[in-house]
Amino acid sequence: MPSRIAESAAARDGVMTSAEVMSWVVERRHARRQRVRRLPLTAMSDWSFDVDTGNLGHVSGRFFTVEGLRVRTDFGPVREWSQPIIHQAEIGVLGIAMREIDGLLHCLMQTKIEPGNIDGVQLAPTVQATRSNYLRVHGGAAVPYLECFIGVDPGHVVADVLQSEQGSWFYRKRNRNMVVEVGDDVEATEDFRWLTLGQVYELLRVDNLVSMDARTVLSCLTRDTAAAAGRPGDAVPADFERSLASSGDADENGLHTETEVLSWVTEMHARYELGSTLVPLNEITRWQRSSHAIAHELGVFFNVVALDVESEGREVRAWQQPIIEPVGIGVCALLVRSFGGVLHALVQARVEPGCLDVIELAPTVQCTPTSYARLPPGSAPPLLDLVLAGRPEKIRFDAELSEEGGRFLHARSRYLIIEVDEEIGAAAPPGFHWLTVRQLGDLLTHSHYVNVQARTLIACLVSL
Amino acid sequence: MPSRIAESAAARDGVMTSAEVMSWVVERRHARRQRVRRLPLTAMSDWSFDVDTGNLGHVSGRFFTVEGLRVRTDFGPVREWSQPIIHQAEIGVLGIAMREIDGLLHCLMQTKIEPGNIDGVQLAPTVQATRSNYLRVHGGAAVPYLECFIGVDPGHVVADVLQSEQGSWFYRKRNRNMVVEVGDDVEATEDFRWLTLGQVYELLRVDNLVSMDARTVLSCLTRDTAAAAGRPGDAVPADFERSLASSGDADENGLHTETEVLSWVTEMHARYELGSTLVPLNEITRWQRSSHAIAHELGVFFNVVALDVESEGREVRAWQQPIIEPVGIGVCALLVRSFGGVLHALVQARVEPGCLDVIELAPTVQCTPTSYARLPPGSAPPLLDLVLAGRPEKIRFDAELSEEGGRFLHARSRYLIIEVDEEIGAAAPPGFHWLTVRQLGDLLTHSHYVNVQARTLIACLVSL
Repeated sequence: MPSRIAESAAARDGVMTSAEVMSWVVERRHARRQRVRRLPLTAMSDWSFDVDTGNLGHVSGRFFTVEGLRVRTDFGPVREWSQPIIHQAEIGVLGIAMREIDGLLHCLMQTKIEPGNIDGVQLAPTVQATRSNYLRVHGGAAVPYLECFIGVDPGHVVADVLQSEQGSWFYRKRNRNMVVEVGDDVEATEDFRWLTLGQVYELLRVDNLVSMDARTVLSCLTRDTAAAAGRPGDAVPADFERSLASSGDADENGLHTETEVLSWVTEMHARYELGSTLVPLNEITRWQRSSHAIAHELGVFFNVVALDVESEGREVRAWQQPIIEPVGIGVCALLVRSFGGVLHALVQARVEPGCLDVIELAPTVQCTPTSYARLPPGSAPPLLDLVLAGRPEKIRFDAELSEEGGRFLHARSRYLIIEVDEEIGAAAPPGFHWLTVRQLGDLLTHSHYVNVQARTLIACLVSL
Repeated sequence: MPSRIAESAAARDGVMTSAEVMSWVVERRHARRQRVRRLPLTAMSDWSFDVDTGNLGHVSGRFFTVEGLRVRTDFGPVREWSQPIIHQAEIGVLGIAMREIDGLLHCLMQTKIEPGNIDGVQLAPTVQATRSNYLRVHGGAAVPYLECFIGVDPGHVVADVLQSEQGSWFYRKRNRNMVVEVGDDVEATEDFRWLTLGQVYELLRVDNLVSMDARTVLSCLTRDTAAAAGRPGDAVPADFERSLASSGDADENGLHTETEVLSWVTEMHARYELGSTLVPLNEITRWQRSSHAIAHELGVFFNVVALDVESEGREVRAWQQPIIEPVGIGVCALLVRSFGGVLHALVQARVEPGCLDVIELAPTVQCTPTSYARLPPGSAPPLLDLVLAGRPEKIRFDAELSEEGGRFLHARSRYLIIEVDEEIGAAAPPGFHWLTVRQLGDLLTHSHYVNVQARTLIACLVSL
């Protein structure tokens, strides 16, 4: 399987040429339209604020609620705060079906429109189903291809792991990230196409096109790609190839062994404390509710707003929903450096209030720069300057990508991979650590290690 | 390192002979005495029930509290209940120091007395320190050898992972399990001795001697032991040896590949739901507080009682504390079977109310048989009969071992490893799965996979 995945990753042409893929995407962006209007928060027909708690929920009791979260931590400059947070306890499925066509593995990707998307449709996984979705709480149509994932023969599973989502906006949310190999009987219907992994990787460089859900599932293939590295004839740079192959054992020239990496993660878990408690939304402080938004008094972080949506998609055509609208454009940057001929990525142990288990590994820098103008001095992360000053010739990846459009409105971040040299030594700053791509891939076969922003950047790194 | 660990595991004599070790333990059991008396719950000098919540806590606000837990789950016959639970959010260290003496690795073990122990001292890890312990909240002496673990050079770490403790009695408790190699300058002081791993394994068969804390740390060496398996001249049975070596890749004859095992664990996480919320102790139902105990109305599960302790140990000599006293003796059994010449262990995905992440892998059977007389029919686990009927010649391990005596009073379970044949096929019953020892060892390098009872049994299995 690893070598077949690597072959697909190297293929820029499959059943469609690269050019055909691009024109399909452009065509879908024109064909699928939606109209999105803002509403007063109290004007959503099936959503209301609970009289006692102030929590915002759906009349069915399903989907998700917007509740309050009270946070206490010893990580970062701000130690205590409260905020609104999305509570969605159920575990959904994000799945990509792969099928061998003409000897080459292809991914079944769909174009999907979500109310929070920036340019209409994005490229999404084969299946993206909340439990409500596939129990059809919303009364819509069945989720196509779901049967490829639920109850699948274990021998056809390529990757299957629970991964967390945005810990600043979601309370302990995770989804089941799956890649499954399917047989010849599975055909691409309208909105769906078979793409090689290489074609999907290529589209990662297009702003706001490959969806967050697709990126996180792709990242779970990192180890398979890594396991195939080092094949003769590969055109990838040698340091990157060695990084894919190096699990860090002493003879492989990684900076740290696997045991050292796991020990560092354990140390970070033991060092920081996080106490986060769901509280009634009407008990949070420094957030104000107006007719159209719940917003922080400084105008930073994000707003909770209400949308009225009319969509031409396959499911329910018109609905209303609350959504999180971040203030400002984020920066998520991964610094990489070659040590001993092996590429390493600098990750940060980061406490996020919605983390299930205190910390996860995040990109080197993950923040919203414009916030710092209105926050106390010293709030900006230490390596942000280095990232923003990145010389163009050192930038290996640079695209604006957006977060899940079903929950987040125009939530955009600039995702960067930047090469550094002597600026940062092998002894990383406290709270940071250098890992090889293979080591990241190994961690990605387990839950709770790597946060969703870092997973996007790992998918981007592997795409290079 | 793996081969050095395997060598130590095979050695029944080290700096002390096996016989010397036994007489040292016997001598310590006579030398270290404690007097333990029960008290009325309200008679503990530094502990009291909070006026508002009824929670039982220490005057310093440290150590732990006894709170209420409200549980809702779709796992098992009882779907909704409340209970008392120990809340101890801080992460402690359980560490074993290893040192090479005369070319052989030795473990620095101590004899340690705890109020809940059955026969006085037990064999404990080098260090067993809560955060309160090493911050010296109790005003006692420094924890010896702690400096071997805190801030240790990462290159000397053999194992370092957060592992959970009893999910029925602890709310999301975990400790940092560490094994560290130390240098010649570390000497065994009073109460401490250098034992080979083989000597510690031998003592596992003695009832109530090797402490739970020692057993959980030992289990984290499973992968190292496994990695060394298959050396020529090993006297271990072939099926067991292959089980140690088999990570399940197709060419190694395990029943399931690593990907299949991880996918099954993911499936179990997605299948079950667990909602557990800390509530004031005075809000739980069906539990009654009398002068000397908080007990379930049916007299099952456990009691919360108060102890007055006078001990001759190194630390504070007299204190009072609440402790959990289980009702009845538990049974923890692991069924093992050889498939294709490779030994597999049958583990169960089990929801426990104090789990951080819904399920962990538990022994095939983990229960307290005497409870079922007073619980609804059908409450007993399905494979319990098979375990209790185990023919003597099929029993590979059988000892009564006890849980941590600092929190649990005479908490004993019969730990069994039993070989089965056709009784259970390769297609395990729903909720169960066959894993090789190597696969369990791999999972044990990560948190949240294997519960503490299963870790004890894995240590016992490796000791065979």
